[in-house]
Amino acid sequence: MLYTQSFSKLIDVFRKMPGVGNKSAVRMAYYILSLPTEEVDDMISTIRAAKEKIGYCSLCQNTTEQEVCEICSNPKRDKSVICVVEQPKDVVALEKTREYYGTYHVLHGCISPMDSIGPEDIKIKELLARVADAEIKEVIMAISPSIEGEATTMYISKLLKPFEIKVTRIAYGIPVGGDLEYADQVTLAKAIEGRREI
Amino acid sequence: MLYTQSFSKLIDVFRKMPGVGNKSAVRMAYYILSLPTEEVDDMISTIRAAKEKIGYCSLCQNTTEQEVCEICSNPKRDKSVICVVEQPKDVVALEKTREYYGTYHVLHGCISPMDSIGPEDIKIKELLARVADAEIKEVIMAISPSIEGEATTMYISKLLKPFEIKVTRIAYGIPVGGDLEYADQVTLAKAIEGRREI
Repeated sequence: MLYTQSFSKLIDVFRKMPGVGNKSAVRMAYYILSLPTEEVDDMISTIRAAKEKIGYCSLCQNTTEQEVCEICSNPKRDKSVICVVEQPKDVVALEKTREYYGTYHVLHGCISPMDSIGPEDIKIKELLARVADAEIKEVIMAISPSIEGEATTMYISKLLKPFEIKVTRIAYGIPVGGDLEYADQVTLAKAIEGRREI
Repeated sequence: MLYTQSFSKLIDVFRKMPGVGNKSAVRMAYYILSLPTEEVDDMISTIRAAKEKIGYCSLCQNTTEQEVCEICSNPKRDKSVICVVEQPKDVVALEKTREYYGTYHVLHGCISPMDSIGPEDIKIKELLARVADAEIKEVIMAISPSIEGEATTMYISKLLKPFEIKVTRIAYGIPVGGDLEYADQVTLAKAIEGRREI
């Protein structure tokens, strides 16, 4: 046995994290051992505090420390437009553009029968409730164009049909500054399909 | 502000870890949020338990959950040979070879004036105490050949002179299966310097 029992367990904690391999997990475990006890205690309280304080916005389901998140409670945001995304990190990516002034709706996943995630496992009914309650003019689907993403986009847009509102999707194509030569075939096909008159 | 206060703090916890960049830290923080509370509690107790239970062997200073580590208390190991390494992970690397049957001594660092680490900040006096107390035949220096490593090796071998024991160092050269063309100049120079008759 190369590592003691407690140490192996500590390595496992980190190995379960996304993007952390075996070697990185071992390095992180040694890092924990090297820290003074007070710093480890600080670390633990930060993790515990984050887990306790952060919840989901009752409207858009994005992570927040309030009942309603900063975006949903901001009077300057256009409440008649909802941009539907998969994860909270997608909201961050879109906010960084500083080009979007509507609200969001975070699904927390995609419909994926392979991982046994059905429509009831993601926040679709919360989206429908918002569309039914408030005066919504447009729903923008901003879900990644994977097989699961496409299926989710299609499923939701069908459910939104009866409300007779505008349902759009973000454009997929060649990234700005990207080179045609290096674009994959699916992206190229999407770029041709989504061509616009100039 | 793109992230809430508790969430930013959580990101910072992971960003401080070795080999974790900004993006990875954000992914890990989201991973923590996605976990059920019980799993986060388990994680916290594992970290706390590791920190409480794991100490340093009173002889070789390697990490252990006992007073004396498994290697030092193993009657099959040759107590007359000590291999001096920088970090506990170096012991793991050497143990994996299954070729070494002596004991170890972990310095927990190198002498490095640039980082204000002096000889008294690493476990040198503990090594000298072992050499003075027990009948040691050989001390093998297995410290990486960096500037700090070389200085540490030289410093320790000078201190060991009065004990009149054999002091050796591991061989540096071309890795087995390595190609001369891709070896750096310092390694090549070490390989020539350390040549042996065939």
